[in-house]
Amino acid sequence: VTHETNPTVPPVGSQGLDARTEALLRRLVRREAEGAVKRLLARYRPQDIAAAMEHLTWQEQRRLYRSIDDKDYAAAVLTHLHEAAQNEVTRDMSEEAVVDLLERVEPDDATDILGNLDEGLREKVIEELEDDPTGEEVKTLLAWPRESAGGIMSTTVFTRKVGTTCGQAIAELQATHEQFEAIYYLYVVDDKDQLQGVCSLRNLLTHAPRTPLEKVMAREPIAVAPTTDQEEVARIVARYDLVAVPVVDERRRILGIVTVDDVVDVIREEAAEDMMLMAGVSDPYRERSVLRQAAYRAGWLCATVVGGILAAEIVGLYEHTLQSRAVLAGFVPVIMGTGGNVGIQSATLAVRELATGRVAVGGTLQFVTREVWIGLLLGTLFALVLGSYGLARYSSEPMLGVSVAASVFCAMSLATLIGSSIPLGLQRVGIDPAIATGPFVTTGVDVLSIVVYLSIAKLLLGL
Amino acid sequence: VTHETNPTVPPVGSQGLDARTEALLRRLVRREAEGAVKRLLARYRPQDIAAAMEHLTWQEQRRLYRSIDDKDYAAAVLTHLHEAAQNEVTRDMSEEAVVDLLERVEPDDATDILGNLDEGLREKVIEELEDDPTGEEVKTLLAWPRESAGGIMSTTVFTRKVGTTCGQAIAELQATHEQFEAIYYLYVVDDKDQLQGVCSLRNLLTHAPRTPLEKVMAREPIAVAPTTDQEEVARIVARYDLVAVPVVDERRRILGIVTVDDVVDVIREEAAEDMMLMAGVSDPYRERSVLRQAAYRAGWLCATVVGGILAAEIVGLYEHTLQSRAVLAGFVPVIMGTGGNVGIQSATLAVRELATGRVAVGGTLQFVTREVWIGLLLGTLFALVLGSYGLARYSSEPMLGVSVAASVFCAMSLATLIGSSIPLGLQRVGIDPAIATGPFVTTGVDVLSIVVYLSIAKLLLGL
Repeated sequence: VTHETNPTVPPVGSQGLDARTEALLRRLVRREAEGAVKRLLARYRPQDIAAAMEHLTWQEQRRLYRSIDDKDYAAAVLTHLHEAAQNEVTRDMSEEAVVDLLERVEPDDATDILGNLDEGLREKVIEELEDDPTGEEVKTLLAWPRESAGGIMSTTVFTRKVGTTCGQAIAELQATHEQFEAIYYLYVVDDKDQLQGVCSLRNLLTHAPRTPLEKVMAREPIAVAPTTDQEEVARIVARYDLVAVPVVDERRRILGIVTVDDVVDVIREEAAEDMMLMAGVSDPYRERSVLRQAAYRAGWLCATVVGGILAAEIVGLYEHTLQSRAVLAGFVPVIMGTGGNVGIQSATLAVRELATGRVAVGGTLQFVTREVWIGLLLGTLFALVLGSYGLARYSSEPMLGVSVAASVFCAMSLATLIGSSIPLGLQRVGIDPAIATGPFVTTGVDVLSIVVYLSIAKLLLGL
Repeated sequence: VTHETNPTVPPVGSQGLDARTEALLRRLVRREAEGAVKRLLARYRPQDIAAAMEHLTWQEQRRLYRSIDDKDYAAAVLTHLHEAAQNEVTRDMSEEAVVDLLERVEPDDATDILGNLDEGLREKVIEELEDDPTGEEVKTLLAWPRESAGGIMSTTVFTRKVGTTCGQAIAELQATHEQFEAIYYLYVVDDKDQLQGVCSLRNLLTHAPRTPLEKVMAREPIAVAPTTDQEEVARIVARYDLVAVPVVDERRRILGIVTVDDVVDVIREEAAEDMMLMAGVSDPYRERSVLRQAAYRAGWLCATVVGGILAAEIVGLYEHTLQSRAVLAGFVPVIMGTGGNVGIQSATLAVRELATGRVAVGGTLQFVTREVWIGLLLGTLFALVLGSYGLARYSSEPMLGVSVAASVFCAMSLATLIGSSIPLGLQRVGIDPAIATGPFVTTGVDVLSIVVYLSIAKLLLGL
């Protein structure tokens, strides 16, 4: 889904390269016009350049990236590149050059970049980082699973003890040279370093300087464990409208914070993930080679093949029926199609409802019932349409049209039942419904539709 | 996709109702045990109650909502309810009661709620709000399209003129009683009220009180127009890691800000939307009646029917071929299935790539080529598998197996071409690729697969 910004409003500040500028950039890079590339880069933010680089080939990306002189700018671009691109542009760098870049970014971003390097380079870089403050932090972060709160958190947190006054906290914030990533909250801890409360910067400012923090802070702050999955972290941040959420250990000591910008990235990724899992495809930026992408998809398609062979065997059983009325075969596609598609519709809704947590409790039966009602309604509608077509088209054989109508009705009703209940069942036994729903539903519905159709036809046509 | 929080970490603060508590709440509501319900509610945040209410029937939701005494708490719950639920719980309220709730929430939230009321009630509430400060703001917001920056922005913004010092700004922030929604940035404007820069609260604190804002602020701040689509706003906030983005008119005067919490909601909704558009289903919380949901889906399924009838006609042309070799019909499902599914895989990727903007420029041909390569690879693999099955199963008719193999290969290669290029083509002519991709791809691939299969079989089997 794309949209255009109202063209009558002049852009405030540069907000990305338009299509023409991107095309120009690409030409300049191809021509190796380094001077012109540099002048163009100077007009844009690192995020814009990172976004524009996604449309270049790997070779062009490397060439463009090498022409960035300012190391801070280069580090910022690197942070905003897609993970596969982070790997590509650093591929031919020395470990010293990579370390130089990593020291200029936040430790959580450095950890992400490190995770995307080729293994050889990664190990050399980690060695090089050994006695480095960034290195220490990176090591802590690498210890947690990559897609957990611990893996995406920032370890620079502004905390103060209970008993500190608002005035002191402000003075200390002013005095410190520590680089707090996007600071919005001050976390208040007790003598055992346990998280007790949280206050916003604005809270600090709007109370008398002598007020102790515990009078200002909100108690029982929302927090997550370092092992909490990033998707759960995102759900919590979204639900409570947070700008950052603290990550605490089993004794409630603060290990870091996850900021909302990382959460936004997680939400963007995960939603795409569900959609791609259902279709059985992998992110092309993750499975970069055509061969590996094909292998990934083949797994999913195997279910289709199993279902297809089953269908072929079933049709084989009805060989004589088909021999005497070959036109019967003509309706196999439409019956499979209507059944299969309405089944996928039910499955898609079920996956979404599970992802949002809406049908998690109790509502299961209600959801399935609703879908089956929709199946019965749509089944009736399309039975009438296709039955009429069948009757009109093969008027000498009225029972053919009736068979088609009855089969469409049964296939669609069954499909909504299967499509809505398979994801719920998979979830219950601990399988990700998105990954398995597509093939199971398609295969199940296809096979059932054919059996229903041929049985009804055989019966009604008296074959 | 669901995950569990590490159970060894004790929750810090209440973070939602667990399944048992939800079940208890439901029982209490059904039993109309108002006292017990109230005691239970007192232990949770409004967001938690709003989330728990999604699992109740409308009647239960209304009953539960009525038992909330604290008006501020009730207003907060209302804000966090799903849009259809906002309508349901307010349905039997007087306009005065609704106004009382709306005055307790931010104007942008009030506007959202208002948009979800039944029309009769909405008009009465707007009348009632006439001379109200909230009413003024709501009217301004209602003037913008609902899914635009203007429709989701907050109108309370902290702005100061160029020339103000950091110290003054802090003093004024301390003195004001205005309710700034989640304040993180101070926006700096010139004498004509035009946006000149932005500084964070922390910036204000870490500079000498006499420093003028223009020395501290970041210039050329990112901004959006009120008519900018919310999805574009979300992309900008995500790209630049913002916590809020100012909305400016054509003369760059600030109209409001869109905060990241609203952006998070937008991203969550839009991703689900693409997925549901592709399957041709509508959010059950939007199309609440079974009848309307069925009608919505029927539109999408019509394409399947048209394709199906076309397929039936084509098969009809090969009636004699099928009469002499009825087993041929057995392979129709598997050829349609493998082709259709690999086509949907390509289409899904194309829709995702378009949504992320990756293939917007130039990369189109590269993307399609890549997909076709994958189709050729998978086609070869499955041609071997299904061809071998055909040869083994019908060994007396070796050309049948060969026909199946050739058809699978052609169908899968064609499917990747169609699946990857249709969304790109739709995008180019201004049609949302997600909405139209599903039916077009399925229908196109189905019909082509059948033509290819029957032609090859007729040729090779010499019928």
